[in-house]
Amino acid sequence: MSRLLVIGTGLIGGSFALAARAERMFEHIDGYDTNAAIAGRAVRVGAIDRGVTDLAAAVAQADAVLVSVPTPAIAATVLHIAPHVGAHTTVFDSGSVKGSVLAALRAHGTMPTWFVPSHPMAGSERAGPEAADARLFRDRPVIVVPQPENDDASIARVRDWWRATGAQVVDASAEIHDSMVALTSHLPHLVAYAFMNWFDSAHASDPRSFAGPGLHDFTRIAESDPIMWREILSANRTAVLSELDGLVGAIEQLAGALRSERADELQQLLTKARGARLRLKESSNA
Amino acid sequence: MSRLLVIGTGLIGGSFALAARAERMFEHIDGYDTNAAIAGRAVRVGAIDRGVTDLAAAVAQADAVLVSVPTPAIAATVLHIAPHVGAHTTVFDSGSVKGSVLAALRAHGTMPTWFVPSHPMAGSERAGPEAADARLFRDRPVIVVPQPENDDASIARVRDWWRATGAQVVDASAEIHDSMVALTSHLPHLVAYAFMNWFDSAHASDPRSFAGPGLHDFTRIAESDPIMWREILSANRTAVLSELDGLVGAIEQLAGALRSERADELQQLLTKARGARLRLKESSNA
Repeated sequence: MSRLLVIGTGLIGGSFALAARAERMFEHIDGYDTNAAIAGRAVRVGAIDRGVTDLAAAVAQADAVLVSVPTPAIAATVLHIAPHVGAHTTVFDSGSVKGSVLAALRAHGTMPTWFVPSHPMAGSERAGPEAADARLFRDRPVIVVPQPENDDASIARVRDWWRATGAQVVDASAEIHDSMVALTSHLPHLVAYAFMNWFDSAHASDPRSFAGPGLHDFTRIAESDPIMWREILSANRTAVLSELDGLVGAIEQLAGALRSERADELQQLLTKARGARLRLKESSNA
Repeated sequence: MSRLLVIGTGLIGGSFALAARAERMFEHIDGYDTNAAIAGRAVRVGAIDRGVTDLAAAVAQADAVLVSVPTPAIAATVLHIAPHVGAHTTVFDSGSVKGSVLAALRAHGTMPTWFVPSHPMAGSERAGPEAADARLFRDRPVIVVPQPENDDASIARVRDWWRATGAQVVDASAEIHDSMVALTSHLPHLVAYAFMNWFDSAHASDPRSFAGPGLHDFTRIAESDPIMWREILSANRTAVLSELDGLVGAIEQLAGALRSERADELQQLLTKARGARLRLKESSNA
């Protein structure tokens, strides 16, 4: 009987469990959460079959273990379950940052053959098992970050499981993953949060009376969990600050053209940006 | 027989015409566009009854005239039609910037009693009459900017017409309007365009393979028309650059906490931003 164990039964763990169930990837799905109430809620929404409290026993029984816990807890969780991982078990994660997690693992000994880092580029400003969705990963990129220590069969299984959710699996090194998600995810979050802080400061009138739909889309990600995002930004600090420097440069280029009333240059910069946005949109439709 | 004339039959003019038709605000709707083909398309989508070519005659017949042309053309259009505006006719606009338009009007003589500036906080990254939508203004703020020269009846009519589209009418001075929309609309556009230019520059890999739904929402407004946005940003240059300074300060505050690993401060800033975003969202649901 094939078994999946999801450690951390929130939005991502719960969504993977729902997709695994919908695609009949496993015969049984266990869930473990340090907050047992969250595992109970994951049972109620039908994501997992049961919440377990004996993590060691559940790991020993599992064929697949998804570690879907906050970024600072990933390495510790992998090290904690390592003694219980069986010969045919593959462990994978869904963390937003790779380099610092892998460095922490290696600092504690050998990198295991059976742990394949991965990261779905999907999420929601909502959290918890009630926000879980079997289709969350459909047509979304999932980055798989194979390590030299991994055995090929484990890598292949992790790719297959994510593909079965409907995701587009992409391979990358930890370094490229971290710099690319700093650009595509962490930087937009940082800017959206900063924007809301400026929005919330003293103005001549209440800016909420002047809000259109563009503003709502632009700032939606600032609703995301502040603790999770403090952890992600901190774990990927160097890459995020480097991407921020690039963005500030691009803002200065636009602002410089506006300030100096160089209308042609301003229009060229806006036109170039629009082209890039259209190519981004096309790539996600493709 | 009551008549509406829409000058500029694109997204906003077309949407107002469709809403006016749906709410039976007028018995007849004329449309004029310097590009006659666009007026023809507005007829085909059912926004206007007919496209007119004799603007002076159409203005003379109209009870209401909506000037929905690019920002740099608003003052010239109002001055151009002024000799033909009848005693019972009210003219209003939908422009994104007020101060520079009103200054241009006053520079050419008296500000007319019958021209009431207004601005719907609604739009789309799409353009043209085919994107027009009778519900575009529903539950959206429409800022009405009454001038000392305006007669009360004209102001009341403009408020009533916008309310009939389902919009929430808010009054503001031109100065407050311009600084508030610099914050809520022009600044997000500038940042989204700049973000796409940085996104489009050389990176270690193709960032489109790492794009999640948050990125798509954050950058959607960078699809907007570059000519229109060059005009809007230029017409509201001082207010936009001033709001940008504030945003850069808020970004630096977040980046400073991240750079110096002041985790508590970082989390406080993210938590404060999330609260502001939730209040923004609530205000639009209310």
